[in-house]
Amino acid sequence: MARERSSLSRRAILGAGAAAGVGTLAGLTATPAAAADREADVIVIGAGLAGLTAARDLKKAGKSVLVLEARDRVGGRVLNLQVPGGGVTEGGGEFIGPTQDRMKALADELGVGTFPTYNTGKNLLRKGGKNTPYATDGLLGAVPPIDVAGLANAAAVQALLNDLAKKVPVHAPWTAEKAQEWDQQTFETWLKHNAVVPSAKFLFDVACTSVFSAEPRELSLLFVLFYIAAAGNESTPGTFERLTETANGAQAIRFKGGSQLVPIKLAETLGDSVVLNAPVRRVALDGGTYTVTADGVTARARKVVVALAPPLAARIDFDPILPAVRDQLAQRLPMGSVGKAIAVYDKPFWREAGLNGQALSDQGVVRSTFDNSPEDGSYGALMGFIESDQMRALNGASEAQVKAAVLADYATYFGEKAKTPTAFLLQRWDNERFTRGGPVAYAPPGVLTAYGPELRRPVGGIHWAGTETSTYWMGYMDGAVRSGERVAKEILAAL
Amino acid sequence: MARERSSLSRRAILGAGAAAGVGTLAGLTATPAAAADREADVIVIGAGLAGLTAARDLKKAGKSVLVLEARDRVGGRVLNLQVPGGGVTEGGGEFIGPTQDRMKALADELGVGTFPTYNTGKNLLRKGGKNTPYATDGLLGAVPPIDVAGLANAAAVQALLNDLAKKVPVHAPWTAEKAQEWDQQTFETWLKHNAVVPSAKFLFDVACTSVFSAEPRELSLLFVLFYIAAAGNESTPGTFERLTETANGAQAIRFKGGSQLVPIKLAETLGDSVVLNAPVRRVALDGGTYTVTADGVTARARKVVVALAPPLAARIDFDPILPAVRDQLAQRLPMGSVGKAIAVYDKPFWREAGLNGQALSDQGVVRSTFDNSPEDGSYGALMGFIESDQMRALNGASEAQVKAAVLADYATYFGEKAKTPTAFLLQRWDNERFTRGGPVAYAPPGVLTAYGPELRRPVGGIHWAGTETSTYWMGYMDGAVRSGERVAKEILAAL
Repeated sequence: MARERSSLSRRAILGAGAAAGVGTLAGLTATPAAAADREADVIVIGAGLAGLTAARDLKKAGKSVLVLEARDRVGGRVLNLQVPGGGVTEGGGEFIGPTQDRMKALADELGVGTFPTYNTGKNLLRKGGKNTPYATDGLLGAVPPIDVAGLANAAAVQALLNDLAKKVPVHAPWTAEKAQEWDQQTFETWLKHNAVVPSAKFLFDVACTSVFSAEPRELSLLFVLFYIAAAGNESTPGTFERLTETANGAQAIRFKGGSQLVPIKLAETLGDSVVLNAPVRRVALDGGTYTVTADGVTARARKVVVALAPPLAARIDFDPILPAVRDQLAQRLPMGSVGKAIAVYDKPFWREAGLNGQALSDQGVVRSTFDNSPEDGSYGALMGFIESDQMRALNGASEAQVKAAVLADYATYFGEKAKTPTAFLLQRWDNERFTRGGPVAYAPPGVLTAYGPELRRPVGGIHWAGTETSTYWMGYMDGAVRSGERVAKEILAAL
Repeated sequence: MARERSSLSRRAILGAGAAAGVGTLAGLTATPAAAADREADVIVIGAGLAGLTAARDLKKAGKSVLVLEARDRVGGRVLNLQVPGGGVTEGGGEFIGPTQDRMKALADELGVGTFPTYNTGKNLLRKGGKNTPYATDGLLGAVPPIDVAGLANAAAVQALLNDLAKKVPVHAPWTAEKAQEWDQQTFETWLKHNAVVPSAKFLFDVACTSVFSAEPRELSLLFVLFYIAAAGNESTPGTFERLTETANGAQAIRFKGGSQLVPIKLAETLGDSVVLNAPVRRVALDGGTYTVTADGVTARARKVVVALAPPLAARIDFDPILPAVRDQLAQRLPMGSVGKAIAVYDKPFWREAGLNGQALSDQGVVRSTFDNSPEDGSYGALMGFIESDQMRALNGASEAQVKAAVLADYATYFGEKAKTPTAFLLQRWDNERFTRGGPVAYAPPGVLTAYGPELRRPVGGIHWAGTETSTYWMGYMDGAVRSGERVAKEILAAL
């Protein structure tokens, strides 16, 4: 079963590569023989946005770099999928928005264009078995059609979350005055005391799973407040609504050609410094030099960047072993559970009904959707997130079973026509060997206060990158890029 | 630093082996060449009590078994330490108590005797800078000398915990009627609402860290209730006090020659079926047969038992990959943080002061101590647990620094003489390559309800053992033995 799923995923990836220009990366796929013994100033483990950004900055500064990537492609949790019949859509990280300056700058530098996420027409709320379209215009953004008491409660809770988040320093959430109190409780416990109107609780529940791919019961309140604080930049404080909104939020903008074009073009600038199909098994220190052993490749360097999600980093065999606090941090930051389902149609038919393709629901396998059609609307694509409890329930299901459940939801939201797509693409991150969940590792209660300082603390010559190490936009592509820039500076200061 | 610690640990282990009869196991330490290619009906990964018990039962039933152990010794989290000058003490799991029938039966079968933990004289409470001895006799066990309001509150909370635990089925805690409610909150949240008198809260805090090596903020309430329910057997419901007490609880009885004699003697019955120094790196399925690759050994079998703590099991490379729910379970069960410090003296001098060597404290590096002297009292040994926040703070410290802090505590509890031991032994489980914490993996909120059923669910021919998979006495040696017996039955039914 797992074997079958794995091979399905591999086909999807190869397909995406062919469509999106991974073909031009063929030269990077060094054979084990060719790359069997290499030396560099710095070895970077992981060719996602974090690792590639770090490698670029190090190379720019005149250092030799070798990037070892486990998969047969670059991009990590950012992945283009080829739409049968032409076109590209995204199976992983896809959007950027205001204050995500570093990802935007990187795309600009590489000549990858952007366009606004389709956002014309009304949102749709499905609740208690009833569909209600609602307007998203106006300065206040979207106001879902729930009872007045629920709206008032939700507004107050959102304001309170933003106020509390202002008290969390993004560089060290564990130093907040109330860090202990906030890290002792789940987000669920806090919501139960604050989102007391059921319709308001519903809104925060669906926002929580959409943002974290985890349930409120799984998350530390301090971690949630940090994540809100991190949804900004050095000059603009983070807010809850910047995480959840489309027009002025983290879902505002898409990339022409698909988001994976950014890491693909970035990898091209690194030439044969990027080695694919090289999962790293061991990192051993001897006399000031690290020997990094991957399948088919052994390489040596004075510095190592680990640009992997924390749970996967812990699966490498380190010698000497990592300090206990670092290992135990990795044991305590699990990946969320997430999948993306994209149904393709001749045209974006929901637009004719005055809908923008964004649905929120209290039922179903997919409870949050987006219009993922191409910029020119030449065909239609509905994208839905399968989150947390829903994804876990389906991780053992066949692709056909997931497809049937997803399309039933899409039909409930947008009409019977949704049941007959011309194509259906499914990306299940929990089932990916080199991710095992997504989009990001989260902190249960007690982790940030006890282990937070280890997130970025180097261990000898081993430095840590990846979106989970970012101060701003942790969990997003922008955070990954920021982490790569930060780790390169760290190493240049030390080399 | 880590390297240095690692080699210290290795010396301690070898020392223990020499003292406790591991020397007779020399024949088991097959060289890589000798064991390079093996076949068996079942391969067991891990030679702790769980794996060895499974292997014994499978062998008794006529199956061929190969046990692959990463370390240079058997016993896992059960470890004898040699006392310089003679004698043995324990660095890991040490005690048994009422209802721990399976560990007792195994010890009986192997001819390992037992004796009562020293418990004559008064306990000591140190609180607010003041030492107060208190009696432990009587049917009600120990009643700590705190304010009357605190005692009343503590008694009510303990009774409530026991009542709630009765509603948790040990075979499936996630099916309890209130499982969702209990799994949505931390034990800290629940304690704050129930242990409202500060002195009562203190008692539960110190009990929590002593039992779980984790802080109340880290634990799911449902997990705590399950752990209490599991502190019994098929005919005797679990209780909170059976976890915490000495005379009638889980600390009642010790083993003659040290607890590791049980796995050592068990391994002797398995002869060259146990291969040491063979950390398993990969488990690959091909045509109904598993190929298990360890350092220096490759072996094949139709069934595989993984008898490791969950976080370590996830570090093996499985092909095909494990189902997502199983992998994500392993990401979500971190090890606690624990060390044991044993100071050795000419004699158990605290006994002369009418003390039993058991101290509870609200300050210090060690907040819970035991008299670990040998049965005949021919020398004295004070054993202290370094738990959770205290252990994390010291994991990077040198052994000399830890020793100084521990002895300062022992002197505070038992007088200046405690500062001049004849020997000092330290076992830091968080720093052990093949444990990385202890004594047991725990569940943060949200884990048992979402992933609990995966704890024991086989994945193809891969079966799961280890104390974390036990229904009764999860986290204890007895649970490990039970899990080995259960997994052997599971496999015999399938082979």
